[in-house]
Amino acid sequence: MTKPVFILNGPNLNMLGTRETDVYGSQTLDDIADLCNDKAKTLGMIVDFRQTNDEGELVNHVQEARQGACAIILNAAAYTHTSVALHDALRMADVPIIEVHLSNVYKREEFRHKSFVSPVAQGVICGFGAQGYELALDAAAKLI
Amino acid sequence: MTKPVFILNGPNLNMLGTRETDVYGSQTLDDIADLCNDKAKTLGMIVDFRQTNDEGELVNHVQEARQGACAIILNAAAYTHTSVALHDALRMADVPIIEVHLSNVYKREEFRHKSFVSPVAQGVICGFGAQGYELALDAAAKLI
Amino acid sequence: MTKPVFILNGPNLNMLGTRETDVYGSQTLDDIADLCNDKAKTLGMIVDFRQTNDEGELVNHVQEARQGACAIILNAAAYTHTSVALHDALRMADVPIIEVHLSNVYKREEFRHKSFVSPVAQGVICGFGAQGYELALDAAAKLI
Amino acid sequence: MTKPVFILNGPNLNMLGTRETDVYGSQTLDDIADLCNDKAKTLGMIVDFRQTNDEGELVNHVQEARQGACAIILNAAAYTHTSVALHDALRMADVPIIEVHLSNVYKREEFRHKSFVSPVAQGVICGFGAQGYELALDAAAKLI
Amino acid sequence: MTKPVFILNGPNLNMLGTRETDVYGSQTLDDIADLCNDKAKTLGMIVDFRQTNDEGELVNHVQEARQGACAIILNAAAYTHTSVALHDALRMADVPIIEVHLSNVYKREEFRHKSFVSPVAQGVICGFGAQGYELALDAAAKLI
Amino acid sequence: MTKPVFILNGPNLNMLGTRETDVYGSQTLDDIADLCNDKAKTLGMIVDFRQTNDEGELVNHVQEARQGACAIILNAAAYTHTSVALHDALRMADVPIIEVHLSNVYKREEFRHKSFVSPVAQGVICGFGAQGYELALDAAAKLI
Amino acid sequence: MTKPVFILNGPNLNMLGTRETDVYGSQTLDDIADLCNDKAKTLGMIVDFRQTNDEGELVNHVQEARQGACAIILNAAAYTHTSVALHDALRMADVPIIEVHLSNVYKREEFRHKSFVSPVAQGVICGFGAQGYELALDAAAKLI
Amino acid sequence: MTKPVFILNGPNLNMLGTRETDVYGSQTLDDIADLCNDKAKTLGMIVDFRQTNDEGELVNHVQEARQGACAIILNAAAYTHTSVALHDALRMADVPIIEVHLSNVYKREEFRHKSFVSPVAQGVICGFGAQGYELALDAAAKLI
Amino acid sequence: MTKPVFILNGPNLNMLGTRETDVYGSQTLDDIADLCNDKAKTLGMIVDFRQTNDEGELVNHVQEARQGACAIILNAAAYTHTSVALHDALRMADVPIIEVHLSNVYKREEFRHKSFVSPVAQGVICGFGAQGYELALDAAAKLI
Amino acid sequence: MTKPVFILNGPNLNMLGTRETDVYGSQTLDDIADLCNDKAKTLGMIVDFRQTNDEGELVNHVQEARQGACAIILNAAAYTHTSVALHDALRMADVPIIEVHLSNVYKREEFRHKSFVSPVAQGVICGFGAQGYELALDAAAKLI
Amino acid sequence: MTKPVFILNGPNLNMLGTRETDVYGSQTLDDIADLCNDKAKTLGMIVDFRQTNDEGELVNHVQEARQGACAIILNAAAYTHTSVALHDALRMADVPIIEVHLSNVYKREEFRHKSFVSPVAQGVICGFGAQGYELALDAAAKLI
Amino acid sequence: MTKPVFILNGPNLNMLGTRETDVYGSQTLDDIADLCNDKAKTLGMIVDFRQTNDEGELVNHVQEARQGACAIILNAAAYTHTSVALHDALRMADVPIIEVHLSNVYKREEFRHKSFVSPVAQGVICGFGAQGYELALDAAAKLI
Repeated sequence: MTKPVFILNGPNLNMLGTRETDVYGSQTLDDIADLCNDKAKTLGMIVDFRQTNDEGELVNHVQEARQGACAIILNAAAYTHTSVALHDALRMADVPIIEVHLSNVYKREEFRHKSFVSPVAQGVICGFGAQGYELALDAAAKLI
Repeated sequence: MTKPVFILNGPNLNMLGTRETDVYGSQTLDDIADLCNDKAKTLGMIVDFRQTNDEGELVNHVQEARQGACAIILNAAAYTHTSVALHDALRMADVPIIEVHLSNVYKREEFRHKSFVSPVAQGVICGFGAQGYELALDAAAKLI
Repeated sequence: MTKPVFILNGPNLNMLGTRETDVYGSQTLDDIADLCNDKAKTLGMIVDFRQTNDEGELVNHVQEARQGACAIILNAAAYTHTSVALHDALRMADVPIIEVHLSNVYKREEFRHKSFVSPVAQGVICGFGAQGYELALDAAAKLI
Repeated sequence: MTKPVFILNGPNLNMLGTRETDVYGSQTLDDIADLCNDKAKTLGMIVDFRQTNDEGELVNHVQEARQGACAIILNAAAYTHTSVALHDALRMADVPIIEVHLSNVYKREEFRHKSFVSPVAQGVICGFGAQGYELALDAAAKLI
Repeated sequence: MTKPVFILNGPNLNMLGTRETDVYGSQTLDDIADLCNDKAKTLGMIVDFRQTNDEGELVNHVQEARQGACAIILNAAAYTHTSVALHDALRMADVPIIEVHLSNVYKREEFRHKSFVSPVAQGVICGFGAQGYELALDAAAKLI
Repeated sequence: MTKPVFILNGPNLNMLGTRETDVYGSQTLDDIADLCNDKAKTLGMIVDFRQTNDEGELVNHVQEARQGACAIILNAAAYTHTSVALHDALRMADVPIIEVHLSNVYKREEFRHKSFVSPVAQGVICGFGAQGYELALDAAAKLI
Repeated sequence: MTKPVFILNGPNLNMLGTRETDVYGSQTLDDIADLCNDKAKTLGMIVDFRQTNDEGELVNHVQEARQGACAIILNAAAYTHTSVALHDALRMADVPIIEVHLSNVYKREEFRHKSFVSPVAQGVICGFGAQGYELALDAAAKLI
Repeated sequence: MTKPVFILNGPNLNMLGTRETDVYGSQTLDDIADLCNDKAKTLGMIVDFRQTNDEGELVNHVQEARQGACAIILNAAAYTHTSVALHDALRMADVPIIEVHLSNVYKREEFRHKSFVSPVAQGVICGFGAQGYELALDAAAKLI
Repeated sequence: MTKPVFILNGPNLNMLGTRETDVYGSQTLDDIADLCNDKAKTLGMIVDFRQTNDEGELVNHVQEARQGACAIILNAAAYTHTSVALHDALRMADVPIIEVHLSNVYKREEFRHKSFVSPVAQGVICGFGAQGYELALDAAAKLI
Repeated sequence: MTKPVFILNGPNLNMLGTRETDVYGSQTLDDIADLCNDKAKTLGMIVDFRQTNDEGELVNHVQEARQGACAIILNAAAYTHTSVALHDALRMADVPIIEVHLSNVYKREEFRHKSFVSPVAQGVICGFGAQGYELALDAAAKLI
Repeated sequence: MTKPVFILNGPNLNMLGTRETDVYGSQTLDDIADLCNDKAKTLGMIVDFRQTNDEGELVNHVQEARQGACAIILNAAAYTHTSVALHDALRMADVPIIEVHLSNVYKREEFRHKSFVSPVAQGVICGFGAQGYELALDAAAKLI
Repeated sequence: MTKPVFILNGPNLNMLGTRETDVYGSQTLDDIADLCNDKAKTLGMIVDFRQTNDEGELVNHVQEARQGACAIILNAAAYTHTSVALHDALRMADVPIIEVHLSNVYKREEFRHKSFVSPVAQGVICGFGAQGYELALDAAAKLI
């Protein structure tokens, strides 16, 4: 398999490890990218790891995945709860989609319980911090 | 009349014709642009046909319309249902606004029944596929 | 094609042009019937234009359309928002259905935002006054 | 003044005095008509007293009132709570409208607390049985 | 016993057997009338079987039942969910009332789960197609 | 009959005639008191006319009415919509209670549609300005 | 046919005939079992009649029905309104399911209007007391 | 580590592989138990794999876990959505809790979106079929 | 008086004193049983003190109380908020029922504010820890 | 201990024993005051027993309690359900607060199920009539 | 300008500085009055600073402001969220109204998010402690 | 202090002064920037004044503020009501945040009453037009 897994990260995840470490853990997004690269190697996969604060750009990445990726692992952060545009892009993506969250969103504010990603994802993994990305790669390896 | 009609298209409409053709039809957005240009010619109008996945850019286009367009035909796609920013931009636009949807949104998910565009539009046309744009041009011709 | 398009009008539309002209325009229902006949002629179609204040009679007309019409253009007025009987009749009608409203109902009271017609119609056209009927005929011509 | 006051009664009021006398009192609708005629005479007015079980017919009567009546006293009974068609007809009626109910509807089931008549009526009188019609005539006399 | 059982059928049931046979079965309303007559004979009862698309007329039939029927079997179809007028008429009817639906309404749209008939009926039978009428006659035979 | 009718007025009614005359009319509360006294005289009744801005004092007046009045005519103004204390006092009052409002509250903000007075009143009269008090006295005369 | 009809009864139905006879009638559950056995005999069927107060046990019975029964007649009593576990078991049951209630649940508290059984049942019979079981056997005989 | 991971399965999961294989996959619960045992071995862990249809028994198992287990992997099935008792037991359990679902519950009925387990779990894994249990064991290995 | 007071305790109360002592206090359920026995003795009463994690068993105990107890003191814990079965059993119990909670449930999660026990109990005592049982015995002594 | 327990009573409780004795019992508020004084004596406490119909005065009493009382027993009657001012005063009171109601408010109208007192009280006692005050004193004795 | 600015303070603000200093700060209401007087002096204004726990009295103060004040600065505390009477008084006040809160009410309980003052105020300042009053005076100086 | 105050303006604020001057006043955004610079100078502060129509860019600016600003004054316009991404960015910002709106948003449409900014801001100032920015600078000066 030559196409990468797209690992897409939404708004404010670039701040990981610097703020609210009680909620999100102390690893930076670069640490997580490293973790994912290592894990992917053991699975014979490659990853394309990206982050953006912009809803439109996130939609672009998902659209790009349709041709360019074998699977999408998506931590859409805040856009999870508000973006119908993202929902629509994912519905057209034609590759397996795995929703990941670092924290257990169901322990947090009510408005984080609604996900526009879940209804178009294969499955959801949340609450396991950075390990969640590794589990998602395991799951992706099996799905593709 | 020398100002064009702005025909503005929102997120994921650039994917038209390639995916979910049962919902949106098999025409591509380029096909629709051609259709609109042809129709406009018969009405003695010109069109400026655009698409963007970005909410902020869509707001920019609407703001630009205030000076640069004689009317707006808007298929805001997902932003129809979530964008107060778009609503506010349209409220200031000072030209006739026609809301278009390819599919009949009222047959789809509950969250697509709410429109932030409708309360600031002259009228709504939905469910007629690409023909909806032609009908909108007819309507625009009469309004301006 | 020899079957007419049924253009069915619901309660109080017989009062058009005499009251609330700011909302509904100054044309009478007869004016609109004339407009529709003219438009139909240009499309090689004929129309059967009716109005009733009675829910049961409106249901009868829709049932009659199943055998006797090639399409239904329906401005159900107040029954749009309350009539499950109309909804059920339309669901059985087996011909294309186009929902029309003179005003943009989404700019009006909350109770006018709910439509029992929309989920069983091909598409919706609202807010363009009498022109909406002409646009609906254009759409019907293409659908049949 | 030569135009009568229309006193319009909705569904099931023809059964008055024979059933549920604990809720509606023991007077028949004919008794109430007599009461109204007597009261009107003392006020120098004439009344046109009607009853129908049919929503469409009730709408017709209200439309007729626009030309033929100086005021409408309306006990729409069940249609009070469900008829947008009646609401629309009343909005166009151009004469004073007084809503009457025999019983105090606010003491009864939740679905009787919603009225489509109230927002288009001058005022509401409820809970005084047949006397409510007399009070309504007093009010009408002052309004016209 | 000489009074008939009124079997009253609401809007669109006259279309039975011709449309949506997956939901309502392939029997026509005449077939069901025959079935009811046969069944009634075995129970020593007679039936008066009617259908109307009109809410007001359905109210009239229920009012007539008060003197003229020993029981009401009512399939009010769409008016089940919207008619307070029917509810009020039934409340005054003074004979046993059995609510019947061909389909299991609780498997269908949310708006069909609300019934204005149920709170004033003795019991409800739904989901058994035409046999439901026979079961209702059995129940009526026991109640009267 | 020697006990007076208590006519109790709630908060801000002492400002009548000076502000918002489009909603409440131009008569002062003193004008209305005079009107009530005159009307009462023609009915052989006497009135005790009071106003207070204080919820607790309004409750006191209602409690006093139990022994000291033959009926209560109550325009509770804002407390209509918020006071459970008033509701409880009225429930214990043991004399006929008539709810009056100068304006048609059902034409105004949603929060004015809820009344804690209506469920414990004999009836409601609203929308007839100062005349509403006269109609209420007519009704009271008949009830006592 | 050799497999029995399972007639399953939920919590508190073992108390029948001893308490709240105004709601549930004076027959005991044993009386109803007898009635069912008699009725089944006339239809050439046999019944397996059970009762339990335990949700888990009721789920077990439904699971057992999949192999061991030709149909399920289920009066789940309180678990009707709360048990998703029961709903899931029924969904897998692969035999016709008929929901029965002794009383008309739609005349009772709001929380009894919601049924987790109805969406997975063939049909519903309620309000006819013990006779409801007989009607259900009639219906089952036809379905299997 | 000598304490086992409790893998607790709720109602109807004993039916796995025999019914609704489109939703839950074709593996039986025994297959999943084998998978878990194999996986655990590779992680140096042991598992205690149980299933029950009974809410009370499931609560007992969770209580037992407090002393007897190093972690809980819980697929509570239907009780996920209704059991406050389970929620309370988990809150006291003092070992890491991982919520697992075979299907993506967020793609199913609304009533399956509410979980009483999530607010007291470390994390959630859903939509990956039997593999979800393996991922949960991976996560547990890291947490303990 | 020879019949005991049944003191029934619901799910997870067997864990008292070992977990969440900030919410529930440090006394074990055995401590509370002792307290109740002592208190009962001073009142000349005897108690039958039970606990179960099982909804069905709790229903059984309540049914048994009808013949075997002079009163029920019930701390239904989680089943308070979810069990219609318990509600129905209590409604048939024919002895005074007192609802007790150790903590003030109204200070806790929203889902603990709804009680299916309260509408069928004589009264409620909550927030006083183990003393609440003693107060309940005082209340029971007076009621029987 | 020299500071008294404040026993504060809200609106309409001064009418106790004279009206609605089926709901509130036949004891007057003076009877309850006597009962409380007697009970307090046996506990070595003194009480300061007050009643007011005025929300502001009730707030004053609660503020006074902060310095002048060792505990508050509060039957806020109607203000329980509407007074945020009372809630705020209680939050600042710094002494144990016990909420008492004579009747079981959870058996009454929906609007009596909401309490602004409960979230700031130690505990709640309701449904035991005048004895509820005695139980509250027992509880207070233990808390202080 | 000779008329003072009325600075009106609602219930429990007299307790400022003594309780809940984490929410409201450590300044007393007298401290704030001093601050306001000083600030007013620098703006050439005078202030009339009042506090009351009574809703009726607060209404009186607002009514008095109509003639006696050049502006109202209002911290209505708890009455902000519940008082329609206050809303009505403010609507008639005819002078600029500025709503102030010491704390950021939008960070607190849901019931504090609703304000009956905001819709009739010029603007809102909240979350800045005592400085909020100074800012309000600045704003008032500009408005008058 | 050398770090500037970031004054961030959201979508459509670049149109200020040209449209809807009745709602937003006649000043342009440049006018407001000048006003802020002047005011800041008097306070010994400097400001960095920005505007964007793009949600992602607004998030970037807030992230930049964490290191580069001493405070944030934020008029997020439409994104106030919809942007969880903005909310999350602000939560991590670690500098005082002041929410400003030109108009009183609580007088406008319901969807403008919800703010994702308020729960993470120090305070809110709205309804004072351009002066609101000056007041915010005053507040910021005190907070830093």
